[in-house]
Amino acid sequence: MKTYNVAIAGATGAVGTEFLKLLEIREFPLSSLKLLASERSVGKTLSFHGRSYTVELLDDKSFDGVDIAFFSAGGSRSKEFAPVAAAAGALVIDNSSAFRMDPDVPLVVPEINPEDIWLNKGIIANPNCSTIVMLMAVEPLRKLAPVRRIVASTYQAASGAGAQAMQELVEQTHELIHNRPITPVVFPHPIAFNLFSHNTKIDATGYNEEERKMIYESRKILHDDDIRITATCVRVPVVRAHSISINVEFEAGQRPSLDAIREALAAFPGVSIQDDVEHNHFPMPIEASGIDDVLVGRLRYDLSNEDAVDLFVCGDQILKGAALNGVQIAEVWMKGAN
Amino acid sequence: MKTYNVAIAGATGAVGTEFLKLLEIREFPLSSLKLLASERSVGKTLSFHGRSYTVELLDDKSFDGVDIAFFSAGGSRSKEFAPVAAAAGALVIDNSSAFRMDPDVPLVVPEINPEDIWLNKGIIANPNCSTIVMLMAVEPLRKLAPVRRIVASTYQAASGAGAQAMQELVEQTHELIHNRPITPVVFPHPIAFNLFSHNTKIDATGYNEEERKMIYESRKILHDDDIRITATCVRVPVVRAHSISINVEFEAGQRPSLDAIREALAAFPGVSIQDDVEHNHFPMPIEASGIDDVLVGRLRYDLSNEDAVDLFVCGDQILKGAALNGVQIAEVWMKGAN
Repeated sequence: MKTYNVAIAGATGAVGTEFLKLLEIREFPLSSLKLLASERSVGKTLSFHGRSYTVELLDDKSFDGVDIAFFSAGGSRSKEFAPVAAAAGALVIDNSSAFRMDPDVPLVVPEINPEDIWLNKGIIANPNCSTIVMLMAVEPLRKLAPVRRIVASTYQAASGAGAQAMQELVEQTHELIHNRPITPVVFPHPIAFNLFSHNTKIDATGYNEEERKMIYESRKILHDDDIRITATCVRVPVVRAHSISINVEFEAGQRPSLDAIREALAAFPGVSIQDDVEHNHFPMPIEASGIDDVLVGRLRYDLSNEDAVDLFVCGDQILKGAALNGVQIAEVWMKGAN
Repeated sequence: MKTYNVAIAGATGAVGTEFLKLLEIREFPLSSLKLLASERSVGKTLSFHGRSYTVELLDDKSFDGVDIAFFSAGGSRSKEFAPVAAAAGALVIDNSSAFRMDPDVPLVVPEINPEDIWLNKGIIANPNCSTIVMLMAVEPLRKLAPVRRIVASTYQAASGAGAQAMQELVEQTHELIHNRPITPVVFPHPIAFNLFSHNTKIDATGYNEEERKMIYESRKILHDDDIRITATCVRVPVVRAHSISINVEFEAGQRPSLDAIREALAAFPGVSIQDDVEHNHFPMPIEASGIDDVLVGRLRYDLSNEDAVDLFVCGDQILKGAALNGVQIAEVWMKGAN
């Protein structure tokens, strides 16, 4: 079996460490492994298959001989080093938003548009986490009938803002329980026992960046510039799985039956149905955390629109929302490249 | 000034104690005050204007001479004792769902349908908390143009399930932070760092009871049987304010300008606009907690539908969502009855 020289840029972050775990769990065919990060993490060691690896500095010379480079070191580092890695011959799988809307860079969810992988010119972008989780639930429905509109409201975990944000959620909550004063550092507002509109920049449309990602990345992934999407993105005091309340409107007169939708969801790889009406047991972040599949439930006909259905979905933000999707892209690419 | 003999049934609960506080803060014109509860709370004392009141047993004889009775003792106690109180001559303001859809019982949000108060036959129902919070944001918009459809997703606080649920949220979170095992008691699922579909009974439509309340109570309050509503109700780890992501679709071609909507919201009593795009400061549960007004923000044109707008609202579940709305009903009634 062919093996690969792999690098992880941003190896010590929330997504980077998950990349490492996944390469181990999924027995990724490695010939060598390089862990890269910025200066402040250089010299740290991380364990992989029982061996200790030392984190090296991410720089222009990091990618000589590298076949596959997973990037999760922030947008500015991706902008600087992903082209360097690609020029050195590596396939870059970039988890940042730096190249997602670049027409020369495929944006891929392997269960949805794997064919786009072959259009890459050295860089493949990993989509936004909320976008991936939403589309995993919507794509099976699109296989049954054209989807014309989506209304989505998110319940996003702290992990989307990185490892320090997850820590801030837990520690700030602890302080608050003991009536000690709190000072938000990572998030602009208290996250303990609170929620707030996703704190990305709002443009003239009134939508924040996260919401615009859900709209425009979805169109690119689905190759459907006509699909109409509105999203409201909200951060909630949950550690690492995103939830999304989704209203899906089909082309007029073409709403499939719930049975057909259930069948399509069940058949779709990476989706598990959790829709136990009798026991009131539906997708929950604590059950979506740490698993590969996206959980889908609360499936019902929309009583307000005869062309629409409602559903609720949870997916691990670090796994399918980031690292797992990236590793899956590499796996499809390796299979096809041989 | 005329004064009233007032009783609070369920005086020791989350909403009951808030009724008491509000009567004090708002200098409700009392001649006497009776605190009623079930057997297990009898003998407890509660303070009111510096005086100690002893909780008495809620029974058939509790309402002799009572002018106004606030009920928040659960649906079954309302069913049993509200008619008794009304027969004894009291005006009952009932916070349970027992009589809300009864055609003989007005369902009132004083800012929206105060005139319905005068149709009462002894009982006035206080609407569901999520319904009140949603309609406070929607009614100003309805004054500008007909609203044909609402898509709502809720982020509901623990307080909606009572004082013990609020305590469970805090204590369970504390246990979890210390890696100690947790056992949900009030809620069917862990609420700490988690969220779940509102655990009320789901009927054949696939909607749970909370969602059906938002649909059918809204129609009754608005006197609009044609308004189409879909709601997805979700419990989140927040203590006492509900948030709702709302998509409002107007009659085709009649969407008002954002300026007109902003003006209508600002002019509406009980609503405050919190829509600071520059500082990314929008309605948050911690800021909506303990205040009378419902906070509205994230107002924008829906990019997916030229007849719709999106907005986000937070309201204190115990205040405007329950006790405050009830006291306001009584205040309108007192004013009109004199």
